[in-house]
Amino acid sequence: MTDTPNMTPVAVIIGAGDATGGAIARRFAEGGYSVVATRRNAESLMPLVDAITSEGGVAYARGCDARNEEEMVDLFDNIEQDIGPVEVVIFNIGANVFFPIVETTTRVYRKVWEMAAFAGFITGREAAKAMLPRQKGTIIFTGATASLRGGSGFSAFAGAKFALRGLAQSMARELGPQGIHVAHSIIDGAIDTAFIRDNFPDKYATKAQSGILDPENIAEQYWQIHQQPKDCWTHEFDLRPWLETF
Amino acid sequence: MTDTPNMTPVAVIIGAGDATGGAIARRFAEGGYSVVATRRNAESLMPLVDAITSEGGVAYARGCDARNEEEMVDLFDNIEQDIGPVEVVIFNIGANVFFPIVETTTRVYRKVWEMAAFAGFITGREAAKAMLPRQKGTIIFTGATASLRGGSGFSAFAGAKFALRGLAQSMARELGPQGIHVAHSIIDGAIDTAFIRDNFPDKYATKAQSGILDPENIAEQYWQIHQQPKDCWTHEFDLRPWLETF
Amino acid sequence: MTDTPNMTPVAVIIGAGDATGGAIARRFAEGGYSVVATRRNAESLMPLVDAITSEGGVAYARGCDARNEEEMVDLFDNIEQDIGPVEVVIFNIGANVFFPIVETTTRVYRKVWEMAAFAGFITGREAAKAMLPRQKGTIIFTGATASLRGGSGFSAFAGAKFALRGLAQSMARELGPQGIHVAHSIIDGAIDTAFIRDNFPDKYATKAQSGILDPENIAEQYWQIHQQPKDCWTHEFDLRPWLETF
Amino acid sequence: MTDTPNMTPVAVIIGAGDATGGAIARRFAEGGYSVVATRRNAESLMPLVDAITSEGGVAYARGCDARNEEEMVDLFDNIEQDIGPVEVVIFNIGANVFFPIVETTTRVYRKVWEMAAFAGFITGREAAKAMLPRQKGTIIFTGATASLRGGSGFSAFAGAKFALRGLAQSMARELGPQGIHVAHSIIDGAIDTAFIRDNFPDKYATKAQSGILDPENIAEQYWQIHQQPKDCWTHEFDLRPWLETF
Repeated sequence: MTDTPNMTPVAVIIGAGDATGGAIARRFAEGGYSVVATRRNAESLMPLVDAITSEGGVAYARGCDARNEEEMVDLFDNIEQDIGPVEVVIFNIGANVFFPIVETTTRVYRKVWEMAAFAGFITGREAAKAMLPRQKGTIIFTGATASLRGGSGFSAFAGAKFALRGLAQSMARELGPQGIHVAHSIIDGAIDTAFIRDNFPDKYATKAQSGILDPENIAEQYWQIHQQPKDCWTHEFDLRPWLETF
Repeated sequence: MTDTPNMTPVAVIIGAGDATGGAIARRFAEGGYSVVATRRNAESLMPLVDAITSEGGVAYARGCDARNEEEMVDLFDNIEQDIGPVEVVIFNIGANVFFPIVETTTRVYRKVWEMAAFAGFITGREAAKAMLPRQKGTIIFTGATASLRGGSGFSAFAGAKFALRGLAQSMARELGPQGIHVAHSIIDGAIDTAFIRDNFPDKYATKAQSGILDPENIAEQYWQIHQQPKDCWTHEFDLRPWLETF
Repeated sequence: MTDTPNMTPVAVIIGAGDATGGAIARRFAEGGYSVVATRRNAESLMPLVDAITSEGGVAYARGCDARNEEEMVDLFDNIEQDIGPVEVVIFNIGANVFFPIVETTTRVYRKVWEMAAFAGFITGREAAKAMLPRQKGTIIFTGATASLRGGSGFSAFAGAKFALRGLAQSMARELGPQGIHVAHSIIDGAIDTAFIRDNFPDKYATKAQSGILDPENIAEQYWQIHQQPKDCWTHEFDLRPWLETF
Repeated sequence: MTDTPNMTPVAVIIGAGDATGGAIARRFAEGGYSVVATRRNAESLMPLVDAITSEGGVAYARGCDARNEEEMVDLFDNIEQDIGPVEVVIFNIGANVFFPIVETTTRVYRKVWEMAAFAGFITGREAAKAMLPRQKGTIIFTGATASLRGGSGFSAFAGAKFALRGLAQSMARELGPQGIHVAHSIIDGAIDTAFIRDNFPDKYATKAQSGILDPENIAEQYWQIHQQPKDCWTHEFDLRPWLETF
């Protein structure tokens, strides 16, 4: 689409099914963006859409497998045609698994990569296609500790997260001088989610003293990254609770 | 001093003589902090103090050689006694020089280190001493491209900047769990200063298209770092104009 | 197989079709190993096998698609049964491509990953399976500049090479304390190959002054890595011509 | 001096007082170099000189404070005039200390830097001066874990080691294209020394299973680095026992 000034710009959250993706969606809605939230099952996004709507925001749920090129191309085409110009794209799909190397199946290794890296590539490419004609936009990839360090037992997860960081760097260098801000976070710590609560109760217990990341605070940081003026862009930043050892 | 709630907290800018330090001072004054700005010659800080005062802020100029332990210890003691509790300390002294290795004198090598690393150590240590009893505070060290990469001809500058980054990492790991947020920036690009205008006119000409860093935008980023809640701290981040090759 | 002292240990070179793989094969044959060289088309490996044989060495060519799990599992099983205990495995498959992000197809992105990362994972896992019962062996992954830095236009290649480095780190940390030495090279420069000669003649012209890497010298470095005693292992090292800018 | 082919080239070991420096001296003597070993007290180097001499090598002890520019300039001048052309220079001075930041005195911070970084700079510069006219030589700086990571309590040591790495990178980039090979090791683990034996007995007890670094093996690696042909130089490499966690 051409740049129609009276259309509300769109923030697309790929992988909005977890607490972090949901918080990011709400933050950008609050900031005045039409939000498109995706996960494989759109139904399950309805509470998020309802929450945003009830707060006066605009949100759409889209069921979409981010590993499926055709679905993703359609998604971005439809957004540009029906909703508005894509100005922000957040890729927020993870796939943390732990296996000793000899117990890591090719199925697991491939699937983790498809979710955390291949889907990131498709997302980044379609975002770039939408943004390049307008020379404007922000793309943020969510990284993790495993983006920087291949720990024992994390060959699949680190492989995928390393790949996503390589993508982010490559896109940042190519698209920056074309007006598109590409950034990569390193989230190093547990996030306040049901998963952490159920599986790491000791860690979760540090929540009262800010020992785990609040998704709303992560979302605020992403918003700040998007607010950076063109002379002052951050391309990589870590987010870590004060108590985290690193 | 004990934590007296009715005293305005203080932001100390060590090396406020350049455009960046001045912008940071103004930003924290605007945010409600009493600001103490230092450079060797306090006289030359008066325009900055006047500007902050005329905007309704509170600022003090202090003449102080940051390489001089005694002067620095006195500075922090006096601030805590007479002005308020030190809550933010920004170390902003650089010393960019370029020499082939065989033309680098020991005088230059030592002086660059004293300004950019040793002064940073004294600053960081005195900041920690002031903050630890309250288990609260933010310390930011200003880094550069040379913090990450030792380029040809930069043995003195990279040596000092690498050392400052090592300090920042060490202090972040030690002081984080004690409530003190230590961060390190990587400023990768030219800043809008008289120095760049006079010495790199081609680079300066990109200002109109945001090709050089605006000190006020750097200051805003430092402010945002200080605003981060304890569960969501950044310890290292780059700031770079969109046009910058990296 | 059990550790039969009188059986010659085996060095497996996955991706022996290029000059580097061939040189590595010859070096380990010269060092007394039975060499198994693989590439998709075994026929084309016959000159290498003949060269090794004529020098008094022992070499086998195996046609094998390293992305194919079944073929790879069979390969290692057959080597262990018929040839000898696998003691060295070198993964040497690259897939350097250059495309702007919007021109990078999913087919290319996936294929580059399959060749340079997924095949590396299968190789590493099967090598580990063979070596773990004997708590002994060396696995070397061949990396490149793109293993450390995602350059503009290299999203696919950097993504795959980053992933391979993540794998190498993860395996090194897991398998090191089990007696298996995992190392990763960063080859930063052009190698003396027909590809460079035909496509980068200016670069190739620096060969006379040692401006491009000699495959035999790379092979010697890999041999040295394998020779390192257990108290003194290198896990990552760069190899770069003296004239290379970095 | 001019390049006199019939003069034996010289390897200079700055900081030969510990086990590692001594082993490096012996290795280069065995390789045919005249060795000049330095430490502050030359007397204490006599057992090393005697050992090398009794093995048929040529070695000289020189008392020299590597932080003293004048002494270092004289040292290199005298070697070039009286002994032979300097072809190898190893900088092997460390200064590992541990202090919480607020207990780190300026005296300690400065001294650690003078020993581990400033002395490295003087060494590197004087080595470069000697080697540049011949466009030939190898300079190796000994790094440590703290060269890559500023750990809690290591602000002084990491600051100095980071600085040394910045120097090594800068010199490698400047001097490489002039024929001089500059490399930096990352020694990550305990070395078989009296210090480790006396202070870390549990760690020392892993010696029997190769859990600590043997100085002779470190020396062999340094020798291999020096042997690398000009098309295939390593600029950074780690050395780590197989049991070391990293």
